Amino acid sequence: MTQKLQSLLEEMTLDEKIAQLMQLATPFFEGSKDEGQITGPLASMKVTENSIRSSGSVLGASGGAKEAISIQEAHLKKNRLGIPLLFMADVIHGYKTIFPVPLAIGCSWDLDGAQKSAEIAAKEAAASGVHVTFAPMVDLVRDPRWGRVMESTGEDPYLNSEFAKSFVRGFQGKDLKNNKDSVAACVKHFAAYGAPEGGRDYNTVNMSERQLRESYLPAYKAALDEGCEMVMTAFNTVDGIPATGNRTLMRRLLRDEWEFDGVLISDWGAVKELIPHGVAEDEAEAALKAIQAGVDIEMMTSCYIDHLKELVLNGKVDEALIDEAVLRILSLKDKLGLFENPTRGADEALENELILSRAHRQASRELAVKSSVLLKNNGILPIKKEKKLALIGPFAQSGDILGPWSFLGSKEKAVQLYDGIKAKVGSSLLVTAKGCDIESSTEEQINEALKTAEDADIIILALGEDSEMSGEAGCRTDIRLPETQLKLAAKMKQLGKPLVAVLFNGRPLDLHGIWDEVDAILEAWYPGTEGGNAIADLLLGDANPSGKLTMSFPYSIGQVPVYYNHFNTGRPKGAPDAEERYVSQYLDIPNDPLLPFGYGLSYTTFAYAEAKLSHSVLTPSKPISLSVEVSNTGRYSGEEIVQLYIQDVSGEVVRPLKELKGFKKIALDSGEKAAVTFEIKEEQLRYYHSDLSFKSDKGKFIAFVGANCMDLIALPFELMND
Amino acid sequence: MTQKLQSLLEEMTLDEKIAQLMQLATPFFEGSKDEGQITGPLASMKVTENSIRSSGSVLGASGGAKEAISIQEAHLKKNRLGIPLLFMADVIHGYKTIFPVPLAIGCSWDLDGAQKSAEIAAKEAAASGVHVTFAPMVDLVRDPRWGRVMESTGEDPYLNSEFAKSFVRGFQGKDLKNNKDSVAACVKHFAAYGAPEGGRDYNTVNMSERQLRESYLPAYKAALDEGCEMVMTAFNTVDGIPATGNRTLMRRLLRDEWEFDGVLISDWGAVKELIPHGVAEDEAEAALKAIQAGVDIEMMTSCYIDHLKELVLNGKVDEALIDEAVLRILSLKDKLGLFENPTRGADEALENELILSRAHRQASRELAVKSSVLLKNNGILPIKKEKKLALIGPFAQSGDILGPWSFLGSKEKAVQLYDGIKAKVGSSLLVTAKGCDIESSTEEQINEALKTAEDADIIILALGEDSEMSGEAGCRTDIRLPETQLKLAAKMKQLGKPLVAVLFNGRPLDLHGIWDEVDAILEAWYPGTEGGNAIADLLLGDANPSGKLTMSFPYSIGQVPVYYNHFNTGRPKGAPDAEERYVSQYLDIPNDPLLPFGYGLSYTTFAYAEAKLSHSVLTPSKPISLSVEVSNTGRYSGEEIVQLYIQDVSGEVVRPLKELKGFKKIALDSGEKAAVTFEIKEEQLRYYHSDLSFKSDKGKFIAFVGANCMDLIALPFELMND
Repeated sequence: MTQKLQSLLEEMTLDEKIAQLMQLATPFFEGSKDEGQITGPLASMKVTENSIRSSGSVLGASGGAKEAISIQEAHLKKNRLGIPLLFMADVIHGYKTIFPVPLAIGCSWDLDGAQKSAEIAAKEAAASGVHVTFAPMVDLVRDPRWGRVMESTGEDPYLNSEFAKSFVRGFQGKDLKNNKDSVAACVKHFAAYGAPEGGRDYNTVNMSERQLRESYLPAYKAALDEGCEMVMTAFNTVDGIPATGNRTLMRRLLRDEWEFDGVLISDWGAVKELIPHGVAEDEAEAALKAIQAGVDIEMMTSCYIDHLKELVLNGKVDEALIDEAVLRILSLKDKLGLFENPTRGADEALENELILSRAHRQASRELAVKSSVLLKNNGILPIKKEKKLALIGPFAQSGDILGPWSFLGSKEKAVQLYDGIKAKVGSSLLVTAKGCDIESSTEEQINEALKTAEDADIIILALGEDSEMSGEAGCRTDIRLPETQLKLAAKMKQLGKPLVAVLFNGRPLDLHGIWDEVDAILEAWYPGTEGGNAIADLLLGDANPSGKLTMSFPYSIGQVPVYYNHFNTGRPKGAPDAEERYVSQYLDIPNDPLLPFGYGLSYTTFAYAEAKLSHSVLTPSKPISLSVEVSNTGRYSGEEIVQLYIQDVSGEVVRPLKELKGFKKIALDSGEKAAVTFEIKEEQLRYYHSDLSFKSDKGKFIAFVGANCMDLIALPFELMND
Repeated sequence: MTQKLQSLLEEMTLDEKIAQLMQLATPFFEGSKDEGQITGPLASMKVTENSIRSSGSVLGASGGAKEAISIQEAHLKKNRLGIPLLFMADVIHGYKTIFPVPLAIGCSWDLDGAQKSAEIAAKEAAASGVHVTFAPMVDLVRDPRWGRVMESTGEDPYLNSEFAKSFVRGFQGKDLKNNKDSVAACVKHFAAYGAPEGGRDYNTVNMSERQLRESYLPAYKAALDEGCEMVMTAFNTVDGIPATGNRTLMRRLLRDEWEFDGVLISDWGAVKELIPHGVAEDEAEAALKAIQAGVDIEMMTSCYIDHLKELVLNGKVDEALIDEAVLRILSLKDKLGLFENPTRGADEALENELILSRAHRQASRELAVKSSVLLKNNGILPIKKEKKLALIGPFAQSGDILGPWSFLGSKEKAVQLYDGIKAKVGSSLLVTAKGCDIESSTEEQINEALKTAEDADIIILALGEDSEMSGEAGCRTDIRLPETQLKLAAKMKQLGKPLVAVLFNGRPLDLHGIWDEVDAILEAWYPGTEGGNAIADLLLGDANPSGKLTMSFPYSIGQVPVYYNHFNTGRPKGAPDAEERYVSQYLDIPNDPLLPFGYGLSYTTFAYAEAKLSHSVLTPSKPISLSVEVSNTGRYSGEEIVQLYIQDVSGEVVRPLKELKGFKKIALDSGEKAAVTFEIKEEQLRYYHSDLSFKSDKGKFIAFVGANCMDLIALPFELMND
């Protein structure tokens, strides 16, 4: 096959090659529904009929099977060499059946569930004619101001890596060519997009290469190790050079060291953005830097198509660089079977059968149940079904529960919380009022809510951020619930009834203003298409919450960044011999987040006992095992996520106080107990030294096992040579 | 002399050598006032009579000439080889005559004034028997949560470097041996202590080596280029390794690359802190890592004295490392002339004459005038002397205006604001009330304040943070004025009179709650011993404010870090073709700080005109000059700080949008104008490339001249080869 592609390449003119590197939105293509609607940023793209005819891929292919087939067929009629188009789209947490946002899926700690969500998304997308999805996003995140934290699985490199692999497996399946219900995955955003300064989207990222390798790169690498076909560049700078023009990052690391030979695509407009970034004086220089860095496809700008030819002709770019890029794109098309079957999985009948099917909705509902996190409960939850309920708040009857990055999801088809609860308790036991809008309210709204709740036994507050308040460019510096909603909560509290808050939001919030005011808080995130049913399952006890946070909830915004796997400092607060003042602390708030990584409640309780290590000495050839007995000591069946952390007490460079190294999710009936074991191997103790070597050091370690990163049993051991 | 020191070294036993590396506090020494009062952390130091007898230096020598002479004489009687002690102390912004805090001095942009403040501090300290001061602190700062921002001159590498040189010149004079009124300087904290994560003191620092070199290292280097004799290590990690055990930083960079051969001292307890940091398992390993990194003196812990001998005897430490350290210490003693004159400048009569002398107080007052920054003025300032004034607030009659790091300053001897104003207007036109304490108030206090201000024409609010709220370990996450004081301001506003706020504080504040409420704000910082007089000079028009901010005042805490010399991003807000949403911005607040770097008002106004460049092309051999005409267009004489910034439009790595490259402070009478010129040379355009080479790139640049970093005239030019 490589020979065939090589021959094809040889037949291509330079113009045709360069056109393969261009990605155009659907309006440019004959046969698309929005054909010719070239407005806004599209209008500034200088593309000719000739280059469209030779272009390589389509962006935002989401018009369904019929359109995809129509575009592809029209294209093949015109394309001189019969090279099919690649159809790419943002299928992030579901195609039309929307799953919880990735941050929520992270909180499920359910790798199989994550994989299944990606499989279903791939099935729907592939049937609709999509070949590649711009997912998974695996950026490590520590700053809740950043709107895109909702798109990541959280703050831990190990957990993010495991989820990265699950998503890639789910999207790609085992054989892209023969499994036409799969799509190629594109891991993003390479690299470290999750660390923008000030939590402001697109902003500068700076860290040492060692930290980059230690915390930020593992999840991208895990996705690639799982066979992820594509990589997308990040918008940000990495050590002063925008990722999209960063040769060190892309050539030295991604291509040479990691031996990635798949397609590297720029993020939306990122090639041309090398100009405002300040590393290119004009579009020609932007094209030069991007192709030199190894970017194969330019998304949404036309620096390549307008300038690569002159750069080749004037000798600044070696044509071999372009050949390399084209061959990678052709190779991906071949892997997807497009040469044999240009319309691949696109199938209108199948599309209609699959999309929002009962099975898909059910899977979404199950994952939403597992993704929700019970943050507080004084015993009011689960609610008994005979209680009279007042459901109050802007999310009571809102379909805005799909979250950002669900472009094809329909809010109209989302199950609202009111409907989910009504399906269980009937309308006679349920009243509802909006109370306020997301960021404003009228006196009438509040009065109506007070009146509505008058006779209720329990008030459920459905509060949160609308989906524009997070997601791309959705950055907030005040991460409390909007003031209006806090006021509504305070008003409702005056009724003196039990208050349950259900939160719909895309980031860890500062819960001041709600934490002390209510009896229970269920973090629903954006739960997806079946959100209302899933949350009702949890509130009314048909399911038991099992999610645990994968991103810390800060005490307040002034504490950011706060994350569990931090260093100790030389003057840790709370050390036995610590001075009162001269320790690493704030004068006005605690160091610890309000809610730590790994935290989440259940309706039942779990006890940890008999934690022990098989041996106190570990050697490279002799792993040790940690065992612990976990008992369900409460009244409900439930699931527990048992977590293993390790601390390297003293390293050549400082090691985090704790690092997640394993977890097991177990189901226990009331009164049941289970032995949980983890193997600890030398490989898990390796880290990046100051010379960037990745290895372990002999010496003292502590293994921790428990229910969250703060509630742990410590078991010291030692690493020695064999 | 080196030969003499070498011979002395050869006479020393290993024990004696190691004792030279130990620094003990005064209670350990015979002849000290607090002799034997070895409590608290001192008690955990395991030191013997023998090692005290051979010890090398004294920490916190601040008991005055008499004590210093007494300790030194007693020591020399016992020390076998007659090696005198070095007396070191924290003389940061004044010895007993306290000057404004360094952040305030930074805002004066007055390099001569800064130098003079250090000269005076040195004179008082040297007469009191001090040989070395632990200053200047030159850490670049961008996070107002961090309490030690008050100790830095701000957020700009160039300005910090210029101040670093001024302070070193001021402390050290021209000849340490012969100028007995000088002290050796110790630049700190090496390196990048000013960038603790989350603005929490002692916390992790991480950045690329390129950024370290570009932003954080220049000021340390500038101090060393000026001849600074000592360097102090930082508490923080630098790329995962605590500075005090960081061989890359200390050996490779400081010693080898920069060729620093002076004394390197640990910060307080920082050697032993390698254990909690997690790079040493015990004190022996801490000692090993610190000596290997090149730390000569261990401050306040006894890892060296307790373990270096065994480390030498068991071959882990080469005695040559110890010899090297001892020789550096002996060499500093020699440079200070201590072998010839062990009591050096210590002179009780001179001490009494100098300390808080009229001339010293006058210099402090002048610098306080220049360091204050007028942040807002609707015309109410300056106040006419016939007005009836009510001075209200916790700083009305407070001596807590010296700020942190003024251990020997006496609050009792500080001129309170009330007294400063009274000296000008007399007590008949001035009433005062406290109104509230720093963080609390009673109804009586507020009522008294309201009553007191009833008949006043103008209310002056004296508000701020007490000096414990900044300084070391003085970190706050809510950087507004304390709630109580905001309430007081709101109450006072109800009287409907003009309100002037004078702020005493150690960090940029979030001014919400005061900005819109008052007619004028004068940022007094902690102005020092003559604070009340200096602020009265300004309020009542005997002096005209001229200070300009050297650290941005954030819009709110959620915006931190915010600093002027940031990158543009690929999607800058406000660009002509920018989309509405998808730009680098916050949804809820602006990107710009409330008050930018370089900002400060005057009672007069200045106009900038006729800005031009001598040539539009610069080459390495042909500098260009920028000229601008500045006119005083207002009614008062005044001083203006004219600022030059440069932007490198496109670099190999991204360059900041603006970088300060020069400034001139000019005095103009009302109606007067002056031509101000700056030379722009190729050297000023150099920066660290991705390979860490320091050089300039041909291409487009923009020079900016104006009154602050946001209010500038742009003049493009080009850099070409000769």
